[in-house]
Amino acid sequence: MAPRWKGKSSETKALADPMSKIVLELQSSLTQSEAHALLSGCSALLAVEAEQTDLLNRACLGRPIVTAEKDKQWFQLGMEEAFYLSHSLKCLRIFGEDNCPINNEELWQYMNSKKRTFPLFYKAYSHLRERNWVVRSGSQYGVDFVAYRHHPSLVHAEYAVLVLSEGDDDANGRLRVWSDFHCTIRLCGSVAKTLLVLNINKNDQGTVSPSCLEHYAVEERTIMRWNPEQCREDQTIVENVIK
Amino acid sequence: MAPRWKGKSSETKALADPMSKIVLELQSSLTQSEAHALLSGCSALLAVEAEQTDLLNRACLGRPIVTAEKDKQWFQLGMEEAFYLSHSLKCLRIFGEDNCPINNEELWQYMNSKKRTFPLFYKAYSHLRERNWVVRSGSQYGVDFVAYRHHPSLVHAEYAVLVLSEGDDDANGRLRVWSDFHCTIRLCGSVAKTLLVLNINKNDQGTVSPSCLEHYAVEERTIMRWNPEQCREDQTIVENVIK
Repeated sequence: MAPRWKGKSSETKALADPMSKIVLELQSSLTQSEAHALLSGCSALLAVEAEQTDLLNRACLGRPIVTAEKDKQWFQLGMEEAFYLSHSLKCLRIFGEDNCPINNEELWQYMNSKKRTFPLFYKAYSHLRERNWVVRSGSQYGVDFVAYRHHPSLVHAEYAVLVLSEGDDDANGRLRVWSDFHCTIRLCGSVAKTLLVLNINKNDQGTVSPSCLEHYAVEERTIMRWNPEQCREDQTIVENVIK
Repeated sequence: MAPRWKGKSSETKALADPMSKIVLELQSSLTQSEAHALLSGCSALLAVEAEQTDLLNRACLGRPIVTAEKDKQWFQLGMEEAFYLSHSLKCLRIFGEDNCPINNEELWQYMNSKKRTFPLFYKAYSHLRERNWVVRSGSQYGVDFVAYRHHPSLVHAEYAVLVLSEGDDDANGRLRVWSDFHCTIRLCGSVAKTLLVLNINKNDQGTVSPSCLEHYAVEERTIMRWNPEQCREDQTIVENVIK
């Protein structure tokens, strides 16, 4: 399925302003300003000024929060987003709920305690982000994430992402029965997304520390309906059969 | 959600020809002709003449199969359908693959050996059929069954049915995580069906014989999205709040 750009000039705009460049700029800006965010339940709250507001919005990280403060814009970062900025891009320090800085090991433990699936979900999130996909929650479509080729204002989400881990009790338990498969595939079809299953193999590494992540392997599969009628009428196949 | 009739006169037609009456006629006709079907894998095959062909089609039981035989019409009955005609309506005898008649106890064992979820699915199927719903496979919508108020040629399916059984390993394992919930609810919404969850409580009866079925309890729940915006704008609620 080809990317569905929003409007005529969107593709040109996206090509002129690659996501990798935007994220690099954000990384550099947050590093320079020694940015830090405060843990709050399953989110981290980050206050930034105009330039970084723009960069966070363009990188599609976090959600802006409306507050009475005029000179600062607060952003609410999801767990994967906060850990990605802190652990992967190394441009954000996280402070605990007691206002003390916490390191990546502690943050990893905290995230895991809040969400059993965090190690698998974070591996999937970072895997896609590192490849310059914009990754957002997929809850609206009953999947774990949706992945955009560029900013959602320019393009529709291309992939509906489910994170699985065969034989792993920490996985989300999706796609184990046919009815779930049918439901997911049918919904993906009706919202013009391709189902992308990321199967995470922990390679017996467990979840003790974030260093485990390096050993996790990610296997990507896209799943689509196979329509025998359509395939039969495919001219190239028909021609091959005739030959 | 109101039933969506197909065309203007469909509701009148349905009212004039209740499903309960059609099924009674079929039951009486099959009993008189001492009808029997042959087990074949997960189906039972039944050969009938013109009158019963019409009744089976009107009751929406089985699927007609195209064969070279001119005077007989073959129908392929699903497992729940065959067991319903044999065990519940007592109007069909079933012959095994060795061409010997088998009783309901043996048929029950056979069905269970073919499909682990059979006891739960059959309870759900018969529960709805006894209440004059037309029940068909829900695989197209990623659910276990769909339920129609009358024949599918007159009305769209109203309910997408999932069969659950809390804490039961034989259940289909659906709706255990939020993403599955979101997926199912979203799909049901987009195809204008209400999600009906039938939760079967086996009351510690196991699955040894079909007599267990009498002790199974069925709990019905319909599940819908709750839209806070819509509810807030509901005039009656606003008025009550103002008072």
